[in-house]
Amino acid sequence: MNPGPRSLRRTRHDEPTALDRAALAARYRSVRDASVRLAAPLSAEDCCAQSMPDASPTKWHLAHTTWFFETFLLERADARHEPFHPAFRVLFNSYYNAVGEQHPRPRRGLLTRPGLDAVHAYRRHVDARMEEGIASGALEPLADLVELGLQHEQQHQELILSDAKHLLAASPLRPAYRDDLAAPPRRPAPPLRWQRHEAGLRAIGSDGAGFCFDNETPRHTVFVHAFELASRPVTNREFLAFVEADGYARPEWWLSDGFATACAEGWRAPSYWERRDGAWLEFTLGGLRPLDLDAPVSHVSGYEADAFARFAGARLPTEAEWEFAAAAAPVRGNFADAGLLHPAPAPPEAGSAPAQLFGDVWEWTQSPYVAYPGFRPAPGAVGEYNGKFMCNQLVLRGGSCATPAGHVRASYRNFFPPGARWQWSGLRLARDAR
Amino acid sequence: MNPGPRSLRRTRHDEPTALDRAALAARYRSVRDASVRLAAPLSAEDCCAQSMPDASPTKWHLAHTTWFFETFLLERADARHEPFHPAFRVLFNSYYNAVGEQHPRPRRGLLTRPGLDAVHAYRRHVDARMEEGIASGALEPLADLVELGLQHEQQHQELILSDAKHLLAASPLRPAYRDDLAAPPRRPAPPLRWQRHEAGLRAIGSDGAGFCFDNETPRHTVFVHAFELASRPVTNREFLAFVEADGYARPEWWLSDGFATACAEGWRAPSYWERRDGAWLEFTLGGLRPLDLDAPVSHVSGYEADAFARFAGARLPTEAEWEFAAAAAPVRGNFADAGLLHPAPAPPEAGSAPAQLFGDVWEWTQSPYVAYPGFRPAPGAVGEYNGKFMCNQLVLRGGSCATPAGHVRASYRNFFPPGARWQWSGLRLARDAR
Amino acid sequence: MNPGPRSLRRTRHDEPTALDRAALAARYRSVRDASVRLAAPLSAEDCCAQSMPDASPTKWHLAHTTWFFETFLLERADARHEPFHPAFRVLFNSYYNAVGEQHPRPRRGLLTRPGLDAVHAYRRHVDARMEEGIASGALEPLADLVELGLQHEQQHQELILSDAKHLLAASPLRPAYRDDLAAPPRRPAPPLRWQRHEAGLRAIGSDGAGFCFDNETPRHTVFVHAFELASRPVTNREFLAFVEADGYARPEWWLSDGFATACAEGWRAPSYWERRDGAWLEFTLGGLRPLDLDAPVSHVSGYEADAFARFAGARLPTEAEWEFAAAAAPVRGNFADAGLLHPAPAPPEAGSAPAQLFGDVWEWTQSPYVAYPGFRPAPGAVGEYNGKFMCNQLVLRGGSCATPAGHVRASYRNFFPPGARWQWSGLRLARDAR
Amino acid sequence: MNPGPRSLRRTRHDEPTALDRAALAARYRSVRDASVRLAAPLSAEDCCAQSMPDASPTKWHLAHTTWFFETFLLERADARHEPFHPAFRVLFNSYYNAVGEQHPRPRRGLLTRPGLDAVHAYRRHVDARMEEGIASGALEPLADLVELGLQHEQQHQELILSDAKHLLAASPLRPAYRDDLAAPPRRPAPPLRWQRHEAGLRAIGSDGAGFCFDNETPRHTVFVHAFELASRPVTNREFLAFVEADGYARPEWWLSDGFATACAEGWRAPSYWERRDGAWLEFTLGGLRPLDLDAPVSHVSGYEADAFARFAGARLPTEAEWEFAAAAAPVRGNFADAGLLHPAPAPPEAGSAPAQLFGDVWEWTQSPYVAYPGFRPAPGAVGEYNGKFMCNQLVLRGGSCATPAGHVRASYRNFFPPGARWQWSGLRLARDAR
Repeated sequence: MNPGPRSLRRTRHDEPTALDRAALAARYRSVRDASVRLAAPLSAEDCCAQSMPDASPTKWHLAHTTWFFETFLLERADARHEPFHPAFRVLFNSYYNAVGEQHPRPRRGLLTRPGLDAVHAYRRHVDARMEEGIASGALEPLADLVELGLQHEQQHQELILSDAKHLLAASPLRPAYRDDLAAPPRRPAPPLRWQRHEAGLRAIGSDGAGFCFDNETPRHTVFVHAFELASRPVTNREFLAFVEADGYARPEWWLSDGFATACAEGWRAPSYWERRDGAWLEFTLGGLRPLDLDAPVSHVSGYEADAFARFAGARLPTEAEWEFAAAAAPVRGNFADAGLLHPAPAPPEAGSAPAQLFGDVWEWTQSPYVAYPGFRPAPGAVGEYNGKFMCNQLVLRGGSCATPAGHVRASYRNFFPPGARWQWSGLRLARDAR
Repeated sequence: MNPGPRSLRRTRHDEPTALDRAALAARYRSVRDASVRLAAPLSAEDCCAQSMPDASPTKWHLAHTTWFFETFLLERADARHEPFHPAFRVLFNSYYNAVGEQHPRPRRGLLTRPGLDAVHAYRRHVDARMEEGIASGALEPLADLVELGLQHEQQHQELILSDAKHLLAASPLRPAYRDDLAAPPRRPAPPLRWQRHEAGLRAIGSDGAGFCFDNETPRHTVFVHAFELASRPVTNREFLAFVEADGYARPEWWLSDGFATACAEGWRAPSYWERRDGAWLEFTLGGLRPLDLDAPVSHVSGYEADAFARFAGARLPTEAEWEFAAAAAPVRGNFADAGLLHPAPAPPEAGSAPAQLFGDVWEWTQSPYVAYPGFRPAPGAVGEYNGKFMCNQLVLRGGSCATPAGHVRASYRNFFPPGARWQWSGLRLARDAR
Repeated sequence: MNPGPRSLRRTRHDEPTALDRAALAARYRSVRDASVRLAAPLSAEDCCAQSMPDASPTKWHLAHTTWFFETFLLERADARHEPFHPAFRVLFNSYYNAVGEQHPRPRRGLLTRPGLDAVHAYRRHVDARMEEGIASGALEPLADLVELGLQHEQQHQELILSDAKHLLAASPLRPAYRDDLAAPPRRPAPPLRWQRHEAGLRAIGSDGAGFCFDNETPRHTVFVHAFELASRPVTNREFLAFVEADGYARPEWWLSDGFATACAEGWRAPSYWERRDGAWLEFTLGGLRPLDLDAPVSHVSGYEADAFARFAGARLPTEAEWEFAAAAAPVRGNFADAGLLHPAPAPPEAGSAPAQLFGDVWEWTQSPYVAYPGFRPAPGAVGEYNGKFMCNQLVLRGGSCATPAGHVRASYRNFFPPGARWQWSGLRLARDAR
Repeated sequence: MNPGPRSLRRTRHDEPTALDRAALAARYRSVRDASVRLAAPLSAEDCCAQSMPDASPTKWHLAHTTWFFETFLLERADARHEPFHPAFRVLFNSYYNAVGEQHPRPRRGLLTRPGLDAVHAYRRHVDARMEEGIASGALEPLADLVELGLQHEQQHQELILSDAKHLLAASPLRPAYRDDLAAPPRRPAPPLRWQRHEAGLRAIGSDGAGFCFDNETPRHTVFVHAFELASRPVTNREFLAFVEADGYARPEWWLSDGFATACAEGWRAPSYWERRDGAWLEFTLGGLRPLDLDAPVSHVSGYEADAFARFAGARLPTEAEWEFAAAAAPVRGNFADAGLLHPAPAPPEAGSAPAQLFGDVWEWTQSPYVAYPGFRPAPGAVGEYNGKFMCNQLVLRGGSCATPAGHVRASYRNFFPPGARWQWSGLRLARDAR
């Protein structure tokens, strides 16, 4: 429902920024350029269309992230700031009620005007002023907000990819986002092993080192019961067994809402799977490819993930279990910067560390997205509604093959309604320790 | 619901074509070029978006009219014809079941691929082969079908304009289709006079001179009761009186379905009217303009037309009354070629002839769109379903400011569901003769 | 959409009533009692439930017909009339805006209060006052309105039956309305013959003898082209051939809206047909019975009727054709008073007269329901909106096995949207004369 | 969505039943009679209608609870058991897929057959056989299941009341369920005090003494942060301040889904509040009454509860906080057996114990309804899908004025989607300890 960056970092005044101006300028330029690069393989038409209300046009992503800097940085830093275009305040506001009206979300694809060129001009205009403000020091008091804007933009970078994939799949031509995209390496998935974790009091949430969104705070104590976690995500081969066991027609494995959704939507396999001439294919950003049975399953909803886990005699992990297991792992993996933009089979095991915690696929947890104990929304429009999406959604963890490298961490909380499946979302099994 | 060219001409083998090859080639080129010219002010993004299921993207219109020539002419004339792209057969089929599958209508706006450039290449490819076939005489046996394809394309030319207007109005920027569009002349509307017609047996339907669509046939006898017809269409000033009399909230003037539709849709005035700072504006292809009170009201549904007529103590004419009254009038008026693309006030009266029967606005009649007595659909796919839209629609007559000059005639039957209002549709009052 | 008595008779002041008080009292009692008798086999629960928005609970029919007499007779005749219950004015108003608010139609089934007993008390209360008024002569000036109220009640009597059938069919128990209902006689349908009618000017509409609704007026001239009409309605056997020819999946025989409706609703056969263990059954007011292949097909929509006609190489008649053919026939047939409440096979032919024009099944025509030339709605609330349903509906003719005997005539115009099929609606084929 | 008893107790074989046959027979009779008494003020019509898909007819509740005993006890105890009516297995199954098909939930109100009398006969038939089985000892091995059936029936007793209230409110007559229902005492609500609870490890879930549903198991450890809980629920007076502060139009206090729901549904006040002539009334089972400003607010959704808490600068409690605070409190309060069937103002304070934890209103918590750590569904159809509703719902605690006395306890978990408001649902404020 709300695929945008729905949780914004709380400004922490007690922690001075370490970025000097030059570093901030470089980082600003780097993140902003990445968005433009992601849009480059798409035509103006591709950038304008909206394939469903949950997705947004690329052009809208490009403009909205710019609107963020104009509204929360330039207007705030300079009371005499002249807006690039007065109507953009409404057109490219996502859901900040304190900032005013919004263009209706399901009609974003009808905004053929302003055109893509005008949006790029808007970006250049704002970037020039932002870079001036960074260079002059005028934005120094708002450095935390600049960083927030960049983190926000990185979230939209992943959405540019997921939304473009959904759009391109709507054409019977099944066009690739990039024809030159390398396919992931083929290799056998390692066998699934269970890794045991004992019961105890654990601390979860941001440890205060580096940036975090406010929904990761405060760090707090939870009691975690003994559990076991799978050494790698569920693969397409494993999920195919569920499909072939008629799993989509067996209510005993499903949540009641999930089964109703699967029936209403006619789900028979993960999103983007297609059966042609007896073979399973999957649509990727590189076009249609044979289904890689060793790669992690992706584009399953939380409902499908939960049903699969039940079919497998296991369950989804809680977010606390996941975070505790991941806390010591290095944040490395198949992120967007690897250039595959598709999940890859787990590498051969090297030691006992769980594989693919980060990157490849977002992992559904069984945890509803709720406020941490002691959570306080930030004041003002930036922090407006930090909690307003904390209902009817589940937490996902770990980032995906479309997440910018460096964007996620063990405490990072992504969230989607349990029926969403246009992200690169998969699952990792858990079970109670015996 | 079905804004495309839904009625196709019956091939009349008894009437040899008078067009020689050169004339046909010139006409082909002229009509085909006109479509490209109409699309020229629109960006690739404008040409791709679909603002509602009833409307189609410009790109789709450009491709579908080309598909017509490829499917019904090139494939038929040459069994070895290689399709430009095999998928286009499905993508750009509108509703011809005999030709095969169709892309779902409400999802036409998601076809960012093929891009606009590819569609223009498709047009050039088909045009080259069509022109070869015309020049070589290979298409001579199918000359009637060529003409049908051109008439079909002219219908889509009007839809390009109505659909683009609807799309542009969806942007809060209210962008003009063409900024350089001249506004119609300002002049007072002449007073409304009633013109009496006596009762009698009348013949309506195509008289066989020149092209017609099959729904205009056969010419047949009807008994028409004595009636009076207004000397000009209803003006915006007259319609404003209905608005100001709270007409949209007074069920006694409305058809039951009409009142329910007006409530459900929140209608308060004709489509494209906007009230800003106490003044009425209207959105036109030239952008937002003050409402011209002397021009014919346009963009009203059949329901609104009927309610207004009741409010005015009159009624809509039947299509037989309209055709009988128009039979002797010259087919002249404010058509698309005049370049206004907007209704103009009626010219000062010159004699007793009714004004603006042709051009300016399509005139709603009270006649449901049904088959004429003795109507026979043409065989084969071209004639497929000539009658399949003859349900739940009303006939409109006379053409509009967006109709290509030369396209309509007195016997021409346009039709839309009574709730449609994105065409330049207005009305002319009638009443029983006293 | 509006299954109630939607067209009300125009009071004709030029025609003095011939009924003396005693005769009027007898007729009043007879019609009012018939409603109560029809409701008698139904439990209070049956009388309260509403199986779809188009249908109404029996209790509502019993109350609404009474409301008519209270509102249009008792209140009008006596300014000091005390309403039986003030809330009933809203609860049992169907759609007379001039009379005030209405209870939302789709929520009529939630009116468990007032209970059935209270509604019967309401009937007795109003009947006593009506009978006083008739006896005393106080209602004499409104005798036409009394007759209108009785005709209105007869229309609702048919609806009590059709709506109860629809409700009972919603229970998997398939309970009978009356277990003791005799099945129609079994006999072979006579062969279909075509009866030719020459072209010419014809007068249709009420001839002024006896009661009529205002939509039958004025009698007027039409030119009818030469045509042929089938000697009897289409039988279940004939319609079964359409079903077995996969007719519901063949778009070439259907109106476009009809095919879309059939797909959306999952139609595979006429309403109330069920296939069990390889045999076709039909649900009747007497319960589930084997399908009688010789009886007229019933419970088909206008869309199915039109598609069948096309499949059969014929068409539906116009209402003018039907009325002209029926004008000389005696109004006799299988009406509700025959006690079958189900269509029966045509009797053996006796002479050349067409069979079953009256009774058995309402016959769909191809004629949209529109105003006759010169039609004038009656003034005031009774005549309110005589024309407001004249849109998106088709005319049916002849009455059915559920119509009270004496209620219909050759000029009688019933009307329903083309998708309605919970009435006993069938069809008779027509074709252009060769 | 699923207001019925959705979680069934796990049979605990390790705990022998203490009930001797006579006591079980008495309890069986007592619970079963209570249902019949609750239905007694309702007419057959009242018992048949269904006012929305979430609610069920009283008749259906009466039959479904009986179906439970027939299906899970009589059929299980005696393989030769003859069903009372074969169709009832489908008609009165709620959602047990393992037991077979179900009648579509939104169409329960169309089941006028079987009638109320037949359902009462069904109850008597099953009761006789149940009582025989209890007396003879044949049901002794299934005594836990008998108790489960009785607990299940008690849940439906509350639903009979909530569903009847919803139905009666649909009539403009606003009829009372019982005209003789005493109104609660009028008395001033005591001031709200905050009661502090320190942080620590706590055990929640059933302690194994007495009956519980399986969703209360296993008892397990949680870490609860320091918090404060209000001494009594929020009153109508307090909630009215939110209404008068335009709370329903202020997005900043709402969850995003909640605000969208409130707008779409047109909520302006709690359900059953009505404003007439400037005064607030509320519809109760005793009819329309002036709003008692001192009584706890009821019939608010979880969304409204959450928005009010934010408006009040507080939050909803978690279910662990609630249970910990309630664990030591006696389970006493205004339950259904008190005969008010409406919330009453809190009694004057006596000591520091929180008031009204049990009875009066179900209290929304902020806790999504999820499985407790280590939760295991029971095997077989009775335990089918114990977890299948654990999605998109919130937990409510404490029972209401419509809950049978003796049915709830501190560990009892009720659950509804956050938008539900036809139960007697209110809230108690909580906040983080300073």
